[in-house]
Amino acid sequence: MKRIPAALSSRTYDVLVGRGRLAGLGEALTLSCPGGRAVVCCDQNVAPLYLEQTRSSLRASGYEVSHIVIPAGEAQKNLARAEELYGVLYDRGIRRRDTVVALGGGVVGDLAGFVAATFQRGVRLVQVPTTLLAQVDAAVGGKVAVDFRAGKNYVGTFYQPWLVYVDLAALDTLPARELRSGAAEVAKYALLSGGELLDRVARLAGGPLTAARVTQELVAECVAYKVAVVAADEREETGARAVLNLGHTIGHAIEAATAFSRYTHGEAVGLGLRASLWLSRRLCGLDAREEARGQALLDGLGLPRRLEGVPAASVGDLTRRDKKAGSDGVGYVLLDALGSPRLEVLVPPRLEREVVEWLLSR
Amino acid sequence: MKRIPAALSSRTYDVLVGRGRLAGLGEALTLSCPGGRAVVCCDQNVAPLYLEQTRSSLRASGYEVSHIVIPAGEAQKNLARAEELYGVLYDRGIRRRDTVVALGGGVVGDLAGFVAATFQRGVRLVQVPTTLLAQVDAAVGGKVAVDFRAGKNYVGTFYQPWLVYVDLAALDTLPARELRSGAAEVAKYALLSGGELLDRVARLAGGPLTAARVTQELVAECVAYKVAVVAADEREETGARAVLNLGHTIGHAIEAATAFSRYTHGEAVGLGLRASLWLSRRLCGLDAREEARGQALLDGLGLPRRLEGVPAASVGDLTRRDKKAGSDGVGYVLLDALGSPRLEVLVPPRLEREVVEWLLSR
Repeated sequence: MKRIPAALSSRTYDVLVGRGRLAGLGEALTLSCPGGRAVVCCDQNVAPLYLEQTRSSLRASGYEVSHIVIPAGEAQKNLARAEELYGVLYDRGIRRRDTVVALGGGVVGDLAGFVAATFQRGVRLVQVPTTLLAQVDAAVGGKVAVDFRAGKNYVGTFYQPWLVYVDLAALDTLPARELRSGAAEVAKYALLSGGELLDRVARLAGGPLTAARVTQELVAECVAYKVAVVAADEREETGARAVLNLGHTIGHAIEAATAFSRYTHGEAVGLGLRASLWLSRRLCGLDAREEARGQALLDGLGLPRRLEGVPAASVGDLTRRDKKAGSDGVGYVLLDALGSPRLEVLVPPRLEREVVEWLLSR
Repeated sequence: MKRIPAALSSRTYDVLVGRGRLAGLGEALTLSCPGGRAVVCCDQNVAPLYLEQTRSSLRASGYEVSHIVIPAGEAQKNLARAEELYGVLYDRGIRRRDTVVALGGGVVGDLAGFVAATFQRGVRLVQVPTTLLAQVDAAVGGKVAVDFRAGKNYVGTFYQPWLVYVDLAALDTLPARELRSGAAEVAKYALLSGGELLDRVARLAGGPLTAARVTQELVAECVAYKVAVVAADEREETGARAVLNLGHTIGHAIEAATAFSRYTHGEAVGLGLRASLWLSRRLCGLDAREEARGQALLDGLGLPRRLEGVPAASVGDLTRRDKKAGSDGVGYVLLDALGSPRLEVLVPPRLEREVVEWLLSR
């Protein structure tokens, strides 16, 4: 498997990327979290596909394995479900040296991650992401959280896993829409990093988006980009980590304005990336051909071209509620050029409205 | 005011200790948490005594101040109350650069601290402890949590405050029993550190325990001891921080066995310290005269001599549920001599029963 070391101030761990390697999870785990009990958390979609294989692998490596299956969907990422999980860990007498295995997409990773981070002030956590979005983004970097009212990820913490174990074979069972959704984060890394990763993603966008065409190299390069950024600013203190918010300020606002139902996270981020490219041309001098190349990349990955079902004003209102907002508005991440992000660009409310209108009218 | 700098890996902050200085809080805050909004959290006992003074001081320094008052008592330290506080922060549009001021004892500090640590993955937190226990212990070191079922502090995290502001004048209104309870933690530091701090606490124990006799020097020395330990092991990873558990393994078990109602935390810790001295003589060669000096110190501070209302077996059962327990039992902190702690001493279950029987039969 490809190994991307994450050397963060709070913990050093590996992200392993392979294909068809789920059976090797237990052995990999013995290196980072030796011994004890393992509680696998997954949702009802993932359970019939990968739970038994995960359990066998862990049992074969000597873990005392139990599991909990939750309903699927973002609506599960709440305090009530977290409380249920605390109860499971409590009833099973889980200790700090035992391990929670988050097997699934971003929802399970965020929820089980938050529970692992806070139960007894932190038990061991292993992320086994099964969606493209979780593999290149959510499972890496230590952000764990649940939603609170309309506030996405409003209750959470930073808690690095002990291991991230990526099996690309899991993408074979992923619905096409979820694969496209993950591709939005892939596109984000391409736009941020430029160079070879951009070329690689452009090639992906040049053909049909299938699981088989998502390579270990591609995922490993996305992960490596994220790990490098997180290492520079693990807890969003210096501001460097904010670069990962490219496309997310408007993306989050779109999700909130559509009650987290019309668009997947990735689709909303895709629209946010389109808006960022548009704003970058107007505020940061992004070349028109580069903007067009970025928009074409998103087209090629099958991401939505047009925003629907949202009053323009509501998006602006919601960006101002962003967790990262200061008192004078949200600092956007924009691009001076593809591969050259600029942080903390203040977008005047007028232009924020205009870009949303552009998204609505395409 | 006396200033104890806490230079921890995750954050550097000051603990300020003075008497009659609550009016200076706002000014001190402008140095560590400049500008923005401040939400003061306190309980119904503290509100009539110190809330208005706290609010005025913050307002005078330019903060936009609001507050929330919760019922008093350990029973409030739960997830439901945390959720209520999240709602208050959400409704007031609190951002990461705004400040939560925890004004009160350990319950408010732990609860408001946990909420501040997790709301938007962490807003600024200032501890203004008003009990002796919180001043020398709970408010310093970054442990924040709520209880879960019978598990004390079972859901929490490590989150250092931006400032700890200790006003000893708050002890003047503290019930005598609460003052004694805090004195148990003071005794713990004395037994751990020996030397001058032990002599100082012995002098305190030689007379009536009154707020006026609790000096800035005494509190500052206790805080400095704790800060040094925490700096060496902020997240209980190397084991060094475990030294602070002296008296707490049995203390926590006693609290749980009595449903957190018969004894205050400090009283239970006091009994735990007595048990630790007794065990230290048998397992670590603590000199009999030193054991007697330690027991006399606890007598002098007015701490309970005898355990009541607990079946001996239940205490042992509960120590094995301790958050810090490994699979082969709890490693106790004991003393080779006063001022010379030893970590990770495995206490045979037989001796654990014996010491509880000794506590019951005195």
